[in-house]
Amino acid sequence: MLDKKYLLPHDALKLILAQIVPGCLPVEIIPIEKAYGRVTAEDIISPEDLPGFERSTVDGFAVKASDTFGAKESSPSYLNVKGDIPMGAIPNFSLSKGETASIATGGMLPEGADAVVMIEHVNVISKDLIEVLKAVSPGENVIFRDEDAKKGEVVIKAGHRLKPQDIGALAGVGITAVKVFKQPVVSIILTGDEIIPHTEKVTPGKVRDVNSFTLAGLIYESGAIPLKMGIIKDEYNALKETAEKAYQLSDIVLITGGTSAGVKDLTAKVIDELGCPGVLFHGASIKPGKPVIGAACNGKPVFGLPGHPVAVYICFELFVKPVIHHMLAVTDKNFKKLIKAKISRSIHSQAGREDFIRVCLDSRDGEIWATPLLSKSGLIMSLVKAEGIVHIPSQLLGLSEGEEVLVEIID
Amino acid sequence: MLDKKYLLPHDALKLILAQIVPGCLPVEIIPIEKAYGRVTAEDIISPEDLPGFERSTVDGFAVKASDTFGAKESSPSYLNVKGDIPMGAIPNFSLSKGETASIATGGMLPEGADAVVMIEHVNVISKDLIEVLKAVSPGENVIFRDEDAKKGEVVIKAGHRLKPQDIGALAGVGITAVKVFKQPVVSIILTGDEIIPHTEKVTPGKVRDVNSFTLAGLIYESGAIPLKMGIIKDEYNALKETAEKAYQLSDIVLITGGTSAGVKDLTAKVIDELGCPGVLFHGASIKPGKPVIGAACNGKPVFGLPGHPVAVYICFELFVKPVIHHMLAVTDKNFKKLIKAKISRSIHSQAGREDFIRVCLDSRDGEIWATPLLSKSGLIMSLVKAEGIVHIPSQLLGLSEGEEVLVEIID
Repeated sequence: MLDKKYLLPHDALKLILAQIVPGCLPVEIIPIEKAYGRVTAEDIISPEDLPGFERSTVDGFAVKASDTFGAKESSPSYLNVKGDIPMGAIPNFSLSKGETASIATGGMLPEGADAVVMIEHVNVISKDLIEVLKAVSPGENVIFRDEDAKKGEVVIKAGHRLKPQDIGALAGVGITAVKVFKQPVVSIILTGDEIIPHTEKVTPGKVRDVNSFTLAGLIYESGAIPLKMGIIKDEYNALKETAEKAYQLSDIVLITGGTSAGVKDLTAKVIDELGCPGVLFHGASIKPGKPVIGAACNGKPVFGLPGHPVAVYICFELFVKPVIHHMLAVTDKNFKKLIKAKISRSIHSQAGREDFIRVCLDSRDGEIWATPLLSKSGLIMSLVKAEGIVHIPSQLLGLSEGEEVLVEIID
Repeated sequence: MLDKKYLLPHDALKLILAQIVPGCLPVEIIPIEKAYGRVTAEDIISPEDLPGFERSTVDGFAVKASDTFGAKESSPSYLNVKGDIPMGAIPNFSLSKGETASIATGGMLPEGADAVVMIEHVNVISKDLIEVLKAVSPGENVIFRDEDAKKGEVVIKAGHRLKPQDIGALAGVGITAVKVFKQPVVSIILTGDEIIPHTEKVTPGKVRDVNSFTLAGLIYESGAIPLKMGIIKDEYNALKETAEKAYQLSDIVLITGGTSAGVKDLTAKVIDELGCPGVLFHGASIKPGKPVIGAACNGKPVFGLPGHPVAVYICFELFVKPVIHHMLAVTDKNFKKLIKAKISRSIHSQAGREDFIRVCLDSRDGEIWATPLLSKSGLIMSLVKAEGIVHIPSQLLGLSEGEEVLVEIID
């Protein structure tokens, strides 16, 4: 039985992405110390050569490589020691043929030198004379001027999420501040007459807010900033007022819950009224998460997420996170943390629908097995216990016990 | 040629871990909103059942399952509608045999009901009468009281890094604050007469601080807090004074650089004087990173990291990060982001040494190829450009072109 009514998630996502201009967020210039994890808004050009001079990569003796050609233990080359190069200083002499100078790792090569012999390959005869026991070729044990980065060269591309070593490199070329996209603000509206704040005592019929806490963490991890708009009654005026406020205050609006009969259409109606073109899909061919609503309102993405905690998680990963990265114009390759495992029991799926199965992992006889947590998508603990997600593509009717699967690790 | 003088990195690490008590950090109680990514210091027990009542997982009609047995399209069961259950309310009636009540997703089941028929499988004849077109079994479309979490049950174990969904679950059971380990403070001392702050103009012989920026980011990502102690001259008194201050102010001390001849021993001497047993290894059988110093001083880990930017990165991953996790008593499984690739050129290694090769990745004819970036470990840009690291174990003499390797993705 094909589920023909709804789009597959990647097709549904495309409808939204087509409405959102990549890199549509404002930019800001921030000190590099604050830029870890932020996304560059422009190519970053090196303002100078790194290093600005030739440096030794070892402790040893700076030489003209040609003076060492043919040197070996049995017939060393003899060189006159012209001096010592202190760290961080400019050598106040140059080397002529047959001359050398002691140098430490990171030290600046004197003029005339083009290589460094490691201390281990030298016999110090006196303070004026050494034996070189091993030949070096020109450039050996040397970092050339501009070998790390050249003036004018792009050191970091636009659309790159800055890693620790990227910030290190920026510091190295003397860049103190960097132009990045502002982090998008993602507002969270909770709907449902049964939802109460987590600080309140539950009474029969009521449940505490779980989703705003899960969503806030997922939003942080995606490089955005959560904005909690509170819990709203399943009522048109209240929802409309809060949705309009959220739309003004944030770059992406998430409305969760509102899954009770009739209220689904209320959420879609309110979203539709926020802007054009409005709702792009209402429902997608996924499990869990089928009732998801995706919309773009005057260039701003708006989602209606189902209230089940597991569906919220899956819909965030499938729709909201890619939209955040699209708005930040991220160009980095997206590698997932995947491991191969065998599925420990058969699972039925439905053709035309993509299923996302929570699994736990364990090792048996040197093999990794994935055990499905077949509990309801309303159970948050099943997501807490899950170590990974197995994706069953739409063309499959399920998985057979013992079949090899790729598990995406949750962490 | 076996490199017998030095320990392999995992053996060297063991020497330090043996000196550090797991979970030796102080604890603090913080609101769950602030606890994303923090590590629990005790098992967290659910103070109540979640949910506290039986809930419907669908929109439909609450029933006694036995009333629907045998029902099908051709011979439906007829049930009398006793009422409607508003969201978030306690039903003010119970169901007897032959009775039903309309219910929304998340609604509380009335007494007497043990299942819910989905709206799609019901024909509403009048406001008082429905036809059930499909049988349900007891418990179908229902979340039982305590099915998500039971009062007294461990919901999150000690030593767990809290994920977004974990915080959601804590909110769900009404836990507003959580006991976590304080984040360890990791101090960074830069040594080297050639190092200048990144805000200064370079002059010949000088290079800017790269490592404190790379390290600070790696420290954040590992769940700790960096503390920069500044740039210190390669001089005993200055280094000793700063090291003692760092030792007082932080939980882990990192001293980077000090790689110039003679200064290596200075760093080791200063570390040794900080406490017992002092230096545990000076050098490890790795490339890059061979000159690394590992120490424990009265239960506090202290490291001397080589000054080359790539060596700093590798030594952090191999030594400092595992020590941070050990101090936080993290019990989570550690999955790495690995992909299989073919190596695009042969690489020589040395038996008895573990090599870590920076690679870029690209796809050719449907296969992923890893191209080694064979530049010097002093070049920070090679780490910026690298997409992954290939680890050559100590028993291998290298890798042959086209050989399959596991690449650990850097991100």
